[in-house]
Amino acid sequence: MLGLMQDWPLTVDKILDHAKHWHGRAEVVTRSVEGPIVRITYAEIHERARRVSNVLLDWDIKIGERVATLAWNTANHIEAWYGIMGIGAVCHTLNPRLFPEQLVYIINHAEDRIIFVDLTFVPLLQAILPHCPTVERVVIMTDAAHMPETSLPGVECYESLLEGASTEVTWGAFDEQTACGLCYTSGTTGNPKGVLYSHRSNFIHTLLGLQATVLGATPNEVILPVVPMFHANAWGIAFGGPAAGSKLVMPGARMDGAAIYELIESEGVTFSAAVPTVWQGLLAHLREHKLKIPTVKRVLIGGSAVPESLIRAFHDEFGIEVLQGWGMTETSPIGTLSNLTPEIASLPYDEQMKWRIKQGTPPLGVELKLKNYAGQEMPHDGHTYGRLMIKGPTIAGAYFKDEGGNILDAEGFFDTGDVSTIDEQGFMQITDRAKDVIKSGGEWISSIEIENIAIGHPKVELAAVIGAAHPKWDERPVLIVKLKPGEGQDKQEHLDFLQGKIAKWWMPDDVVFADDIPLGATGKIDKKLLRERMKDYRLPTAG
Amino acid sequence: MLGLMQDWPLTVDKILDHAKHWHGRAEVVTRSVEGPIVRITYAEIHERARRVSNVLLDWDIKIGERVATLAWNTANHIEAWYGIMGIGAVCHTLNPRLFPEQLVYIINHAEDRIIFVDLTFVPLLQAILPHCPTVERVVIMTDAAHMPETSLPGVECYESLLEGASTEVTWGAFDEQTACGLCYTSGTTGNPKGVLYSHRSNFIHTLLGLQATVLGATPNEVILPVVPMFHANAWGIAFGGPAAGSKLVMPGARMDGAAIYELIESEGVTFSAAVPTVWQGLLAHLREHKLKIPTVKRVLIGGSAVPESLIRAFHDEFGIEVLQGWGMTETSPIGTLSNLTPEIASLPYDEQMKWRIKQGTPPLGVELKLKNYAGQEMPHDGHTYGRLMIKGPTIAGAYFKDEGGNILDAEGFFDTGDVSTIDEQGFMQITDRAKDVIKSGGEWISSIEIENIAIGHPKVELAAVIGAAHPKWDERPVLIVKLKPGEGQDKQEHLDFLQGKIAKWWMPDDVVFADDIPLGATGKIDKKLLRERMKDYRLPTAG
Repeated sequence: MLGLMQDWPLTVDKILDHAKHWHGRAEVVTRSVEGPIVRITYAEIHERARRVSNVLLDWDIKIGERVATLAWNTANHIEAWYGIMGIGAVCHTLNPRLFPEQLVYIINHAEDRIIFVDLTFVPLLQAILPHCPTVERVVIMTDAAHMPETSLPGVECYESLLEGASTEVTWGAFDEQTACGLCYTSGTTGNPKGVLYSHRSNFIHTLLGLQATVLGATPNEVILPVVPMFHANAWGIAFGGPAAGSKLVMPGARMDGAAIYELIESEGVTFSAAVPTVWQGLLAHLREHKLKIPTVKRVLIGGSAVPESLIRAFHDEFGIEVLQGWGMTETSPIGTLSNLTPEIASLPYDEQMKWRIKQGTPPLGVELKLKNYAGQEMPHDGHTYGRLMIKGPTIAGAYFKDEGGNILDAEGFFDTGDVSTIDEQGFMQITDRAKDVIKSGGEWISSIEIENIAIGHPKVELAAVIGAAHPKWDERPVLIVKLKPGEGQDKQEHLDFLQGKIAKWWMPDDVVFADDIPLGATGKIDKKLLRERMKDYRLPTAG
Repeated sequence: MLGLMQDWPLTVDKILDHAKHWHGRAEVVTRSVEGPIVRITYAEIHERARRVSNVLLDWDIKIGERVATLAWNTANHIEAWYGIMGIGAVCHTLNPRLFPEQLVYIINHAEDRIIFVDLTFVPLLQAILPHCPTVERVVIMTDAAHMPETSLPGVECYESLLEGASTEVTWGAFDEQTACGLCYTSGTTGNPKGVLYSHRSNFIHTLLGLQATVLGATPNEVILPVVPMFHANAWGIAFGGPAAGSKLVMPGARMDGAAIYELIESEGVTFSAAVPTVWQGLLAHLREHKLKIPTVKRVLIGGSAVPESLIRAFHDEFGIEVLQGWGMTETSPIGTLSNLTPEIASLPYDEQMKWRIKQGTPPLGVELKLKNYAGQEMPHDGHTYGRLMIKGPTIAGAYFKDEGGNILDAEGFFDTGDVSTIDEQGFMQITDRAKDVIKSGGEWISSIEIENIAIGHPKVELAAVIGAAHPKWDERPVLIVKLKPGEGQDKQEHLDFLQGKIAKWWMPDDVVFADDIPLGATGKIDKKLLRERMKDYRLPTAG
């Protein structure tokens, strides 16, 4: 027997309708790409988004077809999103930080027909568009006065198009499973893969985000999403802001400390979301100029692990609560948040830090489990490692065009590719990438944890740990050491140094001295190259 | 083209699973029906709910079949809900405050097979069960030591059943549209009608409720739901509490001021939800004993319009923020909430009162509109009345067994039966029941608003306004006055008294003096009976 409640498809056009009807006078303030601060209301954004829809319909854009954006966080970008999604087209957010050849691959793979682009990225598009045959038109998001000289074919002026377009259009009226957004992961191996969000998943994600434990958006919050709309959907803020009627402050092209400070100060920002490097930049600016940001109550930090120093700086110097979040493109991105339980919150601040540096617990609608490499579920004891698996209505079930084939396990969980622990308080902590951990006797050994200790030996310049094949244990750890100039090679002293600091069965089976340990572009050890170099190595314990 | 996110049906069993996995140690504290305060965790509730499921499966309860509860707010009642819903049976909450004959009608209409009952209501069941042939078993929610002497056939002891039941059961694994809960409206006319909630609607309603602007539940909140689980689902708290990991404090059978105060004080309640009369009782107790409740930050009040005096008392005497809510059984029940916008919040407290006494704005997922009686949409100007229409995934689309036939208008909106205004800030205010407003020349006239003014005349003891038939205007208002003892009849002075206080076209066409104006059980004017008495009345203006 089915329930008898109304059939009301969860489509994202209803979010902007809601903003117009109930928060129509709330503002979106943008540092425009052209320079000046511009102000607009949700009611106006709603009207302009409908004009965008009509522009696309005039060009015969049909349901399911891809329309891309290559743009900063601006009100224009929000209009373009809703204008595209409202008619059932798929909004494909392009990440301008990718290599040009990756962008070409992605645009061709997505078969984008139109690209909405900010002035900043016109030169980039000029360079790559000759290699993108599916793109018919490029809409430069500016007015006629600011249109650049360009050799791009099929160029259109955003403001001129909107001026000529009708505001009458039917939004929604399709299945809630209809595709809505497309975002490619910049996977470290292989080609980028597309995550194809549905209206349902984006709507449910918006509701997840509105919880008091996540964005906590209300009409009284002023939200500054520094995290870009092309980076995991600005963590949902372009949906959650209008849904709650929060004022939004969009930073446009400038994310340096001075620019962010200026917006916080002039607009009374209460909540902001960004990656750690943005916050480091802001902190440096605040300290240098002895500034405070008293309107800010809480910041959401994610994208990579948040250093303890950053959490303490916000707390000690500025009285701001840091909420750490973890997620990925494949998870829409809300995965976990470091909301303290009453038990943890009752501890002295220093003791809370054990949890504050972790990535936290999932909200309702996100399921997590840890699996060892034999597929068994691992306990939540805070020290047993497991591959982090995730499930829910906002989690990818497959990649676009079925790249990568089946990506779910038998219980329907998606493999994050991360290895983590979950403690008794339910706090998850990412410890390693799965491909870098060592699989030994049905358990994981964290290479990073051993490396962090081994490097503390006074003779060591750099240390790496990789797994080497073993007939009985599958893999056993090998410690690779680059010594400081002039130091002598003595395997045993490095093993002795680890003794008592790691579990006995984590002790490396061998120590190898190397003249060089390869580093990647971000300064991290390039394990892939290191493993390649060590491919002929055989463990002395392998018999 | 469909999105490629995971298929994860929104079923409510996942809410308790989530509570177990991520907030398993959070407590539910109950004032038990037997007397003592009892404490249990979500992990334990999860296990006991699974035992309930197995008890029902042993009795061959199948998906879609109705299992009723006649119970107070207790942890046992929460277990029963999830145990019933988890296997796809329909949890039918019976309201013990209904007349016995209404209960008989409802139980028979629902075809309840099992009833879970609190000790309190065993005598009530004894009286009515002979008239309820579908009921096979009655589970008394107590342990063997407290089992009463009873003539009820098919009686079972809750704790003994749970002891003997397995915890292994498969929950969910059915369509999210599957029926989940059943609650009858105690309609003032005709037979009660059943609202049949689905898993999807309850799950989405839970997410609506978790917003910072609604319950705002977090692991750090301690929530006391005084509003009963048999009254519009305790406004969603039995779902939202576990979903957020909030500690719940369940008042059991005692809702008097002293009992509520004791729980607030001993358990550190931070948030509570109840109807105005409960709060009046608590306030009286606090004042009499000069008590404070400093842990409480916010209370949600709904069920009927919140008097200004109550809002002020909480604010002025106790520093507690009142959030007014409006909803009904047919709306799950979240409809609107009186969250202040920044514009209103910036006003002095006295000026905010204009909005604080209104029912507020809808959250994302609830659509509202005003229709005049010709079906035209009315403006949101704060004074134009319209019939309040509501739409969304948590709003009834039809009644159980299709009682009442089609209940939606052409655009799919449900008619609340209320007349209201919506102002420029989006704040909705209920002004009248639709059947009591006067339909005049295509517009509404609020009988209540005229009555509230007319009663201010020093000679008036009671005043009522009803519509009388008019050939040109459809209806015109008639003022019916019951004078204080010894006062003389002068129609004109009552009309003069209204002059300038209401719109000209609202002026009653006649004044009728009556020795008696009938009142209903709740002290409100019985308009139905009054109209019946006046059925032979003819307007002097009707020609």
